[in-house]
Amino acid sequence: MTAAPHENAVRDSTAPYEHAMRHALSLASRGPVTGGNPQVGCVLLSPDGEIVAEGWHRGAGTPHAEVDALSKVDDARGLTAVVTLEPCNHHGRTGPCSVALIVAGVARVVYAVDDPGRASSGGATHLRNAGVDVVPGVLADEAETFLTKWLTATRRGTPWVTLKWAASLDGRSAAADGSSQWITGTAARQLVHEQRAESDAILVGTGTVIADDPSLTARGDAGELLAHQPLPVVVGERPVPEGAKLREREFVAAHSRDLEEVLRDLYGRGIRRAYVEGGPTLASAFVRAGLVDEFLVFVAPKLIGGPRIAVDDLGIGSIDEAIPLTFTGVEALGDDILITAVPATKVEE
Amino acid sequence: MTAAPHENAVRDSTAPYEHAMRHALSLASRGPVTGGNPQVGCVLLSPDGEIVAEGWHRGAGTPHAEVDALSKVDDARGLTAVVTLEPCNHHGRTGPCSVALIVAGVARVVYAVDDPGRASSGGATHLRNAGVDVVPGVLADEAETFLTKWLTATRRGTPWVTLKWAASLDGRSAAADGSSQWITGTAARQLVHEQRAESDAILVGTGTVIADDPSLTARGDAGELLAHQPLPVVVGERPVPEGAKLREREFVAAHSRDLEEVLRDLYGRGIRRAYVEGGPTLASAFVRAGLVDEFLVFVAPKLIGGPRIAVDDLGIGSIDEAIPLTFTGVEALGDDILITAVPATKVEE
Repeated sequence: MTAAPHENAVRDSTAPYEHAMRHALSLASRGPVTGGNPQVGCVLLSPDGEIVAEGWHRGAGTPHAEVDALSKVDDARGLTAVVTLEPCNHHGRTGPCSVALIVAGVARVVYAVDDPGRASSGGATHLRNAGVDVVPGVLADEAETFLTKWLTATRRGTPWVTLKWAASLDGRSAAADGSSQWITGTAARQLVHEQRAESDAILVGTGTVIADDPSLTARGDAGELLAHQPLPVVVGERPVPEGAKLREREFVAAHSRDLEEVLRDLYGRGIRRAYVEGGPTLASAFVRAGLVDEFLVFVAPKLIGGPRIAVDDLGIGSIDEAIPLTFTGVEALGDDILITAVPATKVEE
Repeated sequence: MTAAPHENAVRDSTAPYEHAMRHALSLASRGPVTGGNPQVGCVLLSPDGEIVAEGWHRGAGTPHAEVDALSKVDDARGLTAVVTLEPCNHHGRTGPCSVALIVAGVARVVYAVDDPGRASSGGATHLRNAGVDVVPGVLADEAETFLTKWLTATRRGTPWVTLKWAASLDGRSAAADGSSQWITGTAARQLVHEQRAESDAILVGTGTVIADDPSLTARGDAGELLAHQPLPVVVGERPVPEGAKLREREFVAAHSRDLEEVLRDLYGRGIRRAYVEGGPTLASAFVRAGLVDEFLVFVAPKLIGGPRIAVDDLGIGSIDEAIPLTFTGVEALGDDILITAVPATKVEE
C-alpha cells in the first residue's frame, strides 16, 4: 500500500483502508453492547500499511480503543490510526482520544462514522487543527449498521427501544384467567434472557409487576445469573408492591405517563438499549407514542382465544391508519417462531 | 428386473417396484386435486420390468388411471400394473378397475395405499380371487403423504378442512370500523386465490357475507376467473342478502349450527377439500369443534389494535388448556409472512 501524498487523493480512494477498517469493526464487536459507551475498534498501520497494533473498548471506565491501541506500541509517530468511530474530544473518565492521538504523533486518522455525542464530538476538527491528516467515512455504511442502536440513541437522546412480546398464533399473551407460563418454549425463553443481558434496562408496566411478580433478571439455561444484569424499570402510577421480587435489586420506578420523558430520563442514566417486555398496556402505549425502534414477536404454536391480547387498542379506526411495519426477519426457534420487524418509515432504502 | 416366483418373496422385496411407483405418483400429480376423486397414477410393466404404458386420472367422469393405462396397449396379458391406490371395486361412472385389470389379463397388481372408500374398496381381494398376484404397500408412506387430504376426508366421511385467516402482526383481521381491505399484499392474496382454486368449497359465515359481500371466486392476477371455481358455502342462521354477489353463482346455505353435520353434508356433495375463510366467528367455531386439519395464517407487517381479532373466544380458561399446534412451515410471501400449522395431535411421529 502506498500512502497518497495529498488528502484529496486519499479521500478519492478510501479502498486502501477498508481492509483495516473491517478488522477494526471486528475488534469493536469484542466489546460490550451495554453500559452506555459504543463498541469501538482501532488498528494502527505503519506507513506501508501493515497492522502494528490493535485496540478496542472494553466498556465504561476502561481505555478507549485508540488509547488501547496506542498502549501497544513504543512509538506511534507517523502511524495511521484506523478507528470505527470519530475519536472523542471530551474529558470523560479517560481523557480525549483526539489529544492522545496528537500527543502520540500519529500522522493520519481514518474513521468510519462521525461521533454524534454532544459532549464528545469535534475530534476530527481538533485533529486537523493539530496538523493530523483526517480521512472520514471509510466503510461508513457498515459501521452505521454495526452501531445503529447506539448511534440512534445518542443522536436522539433517548434509548433504542426494543418491544418484545410473546403470543399464541392467534395473538394472545395469556389465557382468560391471566395465566401465561409458558406460552413459548425453552429456546425462545433463553433467547429472551440473552436479549435482556444485552440491554441496559428492562421496562415493564406496574400491572405486570403486580400480576406476575417477575424477577426480570437475565439468566442462563441453568438458572444462573448472567454477567450483565439490566436495570429493571417499572412504568406506571401504581406503586411496586412491598414484597415484589424486583425490590431485591436496584430498580427504577417511572411514574410519568409521558414515555418520551421516561426515556430521556433513562438516557440520562446511561441507558442506551431499553427492552420493553410489556404487558399489553405498556406495549400499546409505546406503539401509540411511536417510540418503538424494533419489534420482536415470539409466536407460539398454540391457540388461546379470549380477551388477553398481546397488544391492546392503538387508537386506529380504519385499516388505512394501520401502523406500517417492515418484517426484517423470521426464524424457527425451537417449536416457536420469532418475527422481527421495524417501523416501515425507519427502513432505509 | 426378475419377477419373483412367490408372492411372499415379492412382499419381502418391494424395491423392484419403487421406481415404477414413484413414476406413477408423478403421473398422479397431473390430475386435479378437486372434484371428489383422488389423484391416481398407473404404469404397466413388461415381465422384464420395462414401462410399456402410463395412465392417470383426469377427474370425475373420465377413465381411472388403470383404464387409461390399459387403453395404451393392445395386449395387457402378463403385464404388471403399478398403481398408486388400490384399484377400485365399484360400479361408478366408469366401471370397476379391478374387473378391467382381470379382463385385460394383467398378471400382477402392485399398489401403494388401500382404497379407504366404503363403496369402492375390496379391489385387492377381488383381484386375488381371480388369480392375479397382488403386492400392496409399495411406497405406502409417500403415497399416504401425497394423498393425505383425500385419504383423510374419505376415511372420515368429512372434507379436509383448511382454516385460513389473515391478520396484522398483533392478530387483528380488521380495524375498529370493520375495514380490512387490504391487510395483506398482492402475493398473499394471489396465493389465496390459488388455494381457493384447489378447494372444492369455500366456507364463510353469514356475518362475513353481510359485512363484506365477497364474490368468493378464484381469480388470476389479472382478475380473470380460474378454471376451477370452488362451491361457496355460507354457514349461519341468517339469510344471504338478496343482492349478494354470491347469488350470481351456485352456492350452499348451511343453516345448521352443527359444523360436523355441515361437513358431512358437504362430503355427500362430493366436497373433499373445504377452505374456511372466516370471519372470526366461523373460524373460532371450527377451532372449538376441533374440526380444523390445517391452519394457514397470513401475517401482515402492520399493527392495528382494537377489537377485531382474527380468532374469537375459544372457551379456554387457563394456559394449560391452550390448543397445541405444530408449526409445519413459515415463509416470506411478498411483504407478508405465511405460517402453516396443524393440530399437534395430528402430527405423526
